[in-house]
Amino acid sequence: MEIISEAKAFGGIQGVYRHGSTSTGTDMTFSVYVPPHTPGAKLPVLWYLSGLTCTHANVTEKGDFRRACAELGIVFVAPDTGPRGDGVADDPNEAYDFGLGAGFYVDATQAPFSKHYKMKTYIEDELPALIAKSFPADMTAQGITGHSMGGHGALTIGLHNPQTFKSISAFSPIVAPSQVPWGEKALGGYLGDDRAAWAKHDAVELIKAGHNAPGGILVDQGLDDNFFKEQLKTHLLDAACETAGIDLQTRYHAGYDHSYYFISTFMRDHIVWHAERLRR
Amino acid sequence: MEIISEAKAFGGIQGVYRHGSTSTGTDMTFSVYVPPHTPGAKLPVLWYLSGLTCTHANVTEKGDFRRACAELGIVFVAPDTGPRGDGVADDPNEAYDFGLGAGFYVDATQAPFSKHYKMKTYIEDELPALIAKSFPADMTAQGITGHSMGGHGALTIGLHNPQTFKSISAFSPIVAPSQVPWGEKALGGYLGDDRAAWAKHDAVELIKAGHNAPGGILVDQGLDDNFFKEQLKTHLLDAACETAGIDLQTRYHAGYDHSYYFISTFMRDHIVWHAERLRR
Repeated sequence: MEIISEAKAFGGIQGVYRHGSTSTGTDMTFSVYVPPHTPGAKLPVLWYLSGLTCTHANVTEKGDFRRACAELGIVFVAPDTGPRGDGVADDPNEAYDFGLGAGFYVDATQAPFSKHYKMKTYIEDELPALIAKSFPADMTAQGITGHSMGGHGALTIGLHNPQTFKSISAFSPIVAPSQVPWGEKALGGYLGDDRAAWAKHDAVELIKAGHNAPGGILVDQGLDDNFFKEQLKTHLLDAACETAGIDLQTRYHAGYDHSYYFISTFMRDHIVWHAERLRR
Repeated sequence: MEIISEAKAFGGIQGVYRHGSTSTGTDMTFSVYVPPHTPGAKLPVLWYLSGLTCTHANVTEKGDFRRACAELGIVFVAPDTGPRGDGVADDPNEAYDFGLGAGFYVDATQAPFSKHYKMKTYIEDELPALIAKSFPADMTAQGITGHSMGGHGALTIGLHNPQTFKSISAFSPIVAPSQVPWGEKALGGYLGDDRAAWAKHDAVELIKAGHNAPGGILVDQGLDDNFFKEQLKTHLLDAACETAGIDLQTRYHAGYDHSYYFISTFMRDHIVWHAERLRR
């Protein structure tokens, strides 16, 4: 693991790191904020998965998460959204919603994407092992959140691993990718035409199939979000959780859009919510 | 004035705006955060002047100022650091520390820079008039802060206008540009060889000449700041203020660098400090 940068912030250290990933076969960059802590302590970990077009840098710069993480003693990990570099396949038209910057947190099965796009394995297995080894992280106390495509990632990876992620939240998530254009394009491109394969990466379908979120789910959604009606369809998650008896709290916010101005406004609430569940 | 973007954040509106400036003869872009407020209210204004290479965008994205401004009811204005566009003279070698992105908050007298580089007039006169007209701003309650070159700007413009700026603060400011390489290059380039002209744009020299800061001055400085010893020389401000009897509080912080990780860590303290002085 190579240190790209480390800087003191709110009494802790905001770092950016790079490592050679065996999952993706590429170098991967990620950021970690380690709050001030007593030597030898192990701290709860909050994963933040980013949205389309983003790298680790967007939330690291604009997320307003460090003060709350410092106060509550939470390690904050922000991975990249997909593999990058020479030889990594991209959308044929270099579209923003597939290929580079749009890994959708799945392990692709379709060539040429199956060579590098292994984000599910990377987020579930490889990067956690590196975090556990390299940072003062209590891996028995992990929560997961994310934005948009990363909200989809947080929900699906959280639902797949309820023993690992004790708390799940999301900002303006794609809740039912099988039913919206972004998801149909991405899941079709990475996983092929078999919609049964898609269902394993669709939060609403996972909940219908019996996956649970014992720690509950918190979702924030802006009502002036341009993607709300066509791509996000939050109400489908509301309905699925109600039917399944999952403790979902969805908060709809008048006037807020899809941007980091929205995310940063409610970031502290999410960190507090996760900390309450991870520090038990 | 043209709206480039407006987004809801922390209950208020973060906007980015553009206007044709008569001072610089160019279009100028700036950002304003207006916190939630009762209709018709006029709110205190905090000016934030940015450092070398920056635009309005750096602090707007990375400054972590909105929560505190929302809680305390402060309008936060972030201008650009200089004129831009076709025909605006730049450093002959396109260096980062002179010309574009490096206006140094002076009115240039030397050709070719004297045509557009009129940042003192822009910040002191033109932009305040536009803010007063276009936003719910109480122009009898203004404070000024800034970072690095912008800390120099905040100190010098604040010292020149104690009736206007009731409170002055700075993050890692250039306190004595006449005595450091950045300042010698910039003041020489914009103002010529006459060091008497420089003294009017040098905080330490202004204080020695009797300028005062009735509301006091707050300065934060990181001790791991690469520019601290050669370019910033904070102790020269400490000494000048002590001799002059100006109420300066300088806080030196172990481990902090020159970046927005440092600025954002202490931003809330500055907003609280200004609010205490502006809301009297």
